[in-house]
Amino acid sequence: MHAAAPMAPVFHLDGQLASDSHPVAELPVCSLRLMDDSNYPWLVLIPRVAEARELIDLDQDTRLAVMQEIDLAARVLKQEFRPYKLNVAALGNLVPQLHVHVIARYTEDPAWPAPVWGRIHARPYEPEALVERVGRLQHALTALRRVRPA
Amino acid sequence: MHAAAPMAPVFHLDGQLASDSHPVAELPVCSLRLMDDSNYPWLVLIPRVAEARELIDLDQDTRLAVMQEIDLAARVLKQEFRPYKLNVAALGNLVPQLHVHVIARYTEDPAWPAPVWGRIHARPYEPEALVERVGRLQHALTALRRVRPA
Repeated sequence: MHAAAPMAPVFHLDGQLASDSHPVAELPVCSLRLMDDSNYPWLVLIPRVAEARELIDLDQDTRLAVMQEIDLAARVLKQEFRPYKLNVAALGNLVPQLHVHVIARYTEDPAWPAPVWGRIHARPYEPEALVERVGRLQHALTALRRVRPA
Repeated sequence: MHAAAPMAPVFHLDGQLASDSHPVAELPVCSLRLMDDSNYPWLVLIPRVAEARELIDLDQDTRLAVMQEIDLAARVLKQEFRPYKLNVAALGNLVPQLHVHVIARYTEDPAWPAPVWGRIHARPYEPEALVERVGRLQHALTALRRVRPA
């Protein structure tokens, strides 16, 4: 028997993020997912980098690629949902795995003008609405011609 | 008399941001300022780009430069204040001028684990504490050798 070689850490999507969101696309660096809260069009980007917790944990090329994917997610939301404001945030106080929120906000949304976190109970999508929403996002992403489909 | 040429819009720091924060440094793209709330070590980056409201309003080179300046601000906070978590966010629901928060968070800070916005009244720095804090940040920035001093 050979001694086992040291294994590099492997990326696994955090269980809380997995249960709170639905897959939309696999971008070059991040998994792009839709948060299961129909109060807002709300995307989350999770860099597929094992053990990353902060943006400063990423190497420079990866960090800049994440910025480009944040930009893509924001442009999709702007194009499809015409928000009054976009909110972009990497917080991670509750879920330690690095993830970036990109949220379309409206002056009439239920948390406005406060941030969305911890204010209003999530309103999960109905199944048909979820299928429609994910499909619409995938279509818009493909039209922007930057992504591999999920 | 000549007709006036069309004038390019000029960047002016938003009055609310100016009154809520203190200058720390002028980075290549952003003004770096300390929020006047001693509850948390809290920096804010304001790209000196007239009329920018969203990260997607910036051209790509500027946006990536902002990402590098976010990284610098985050590394300064990590080095100087050893936070449990960094929070990075571009919200702008109340102040429309594009600005990015970089905040050092602790499990014992007064808003933890909630986001800081709109939870706890700001606790302005005492004058001596402000001078010490700004000087410490400027010293750390200079040591990281990336910035022109303010």
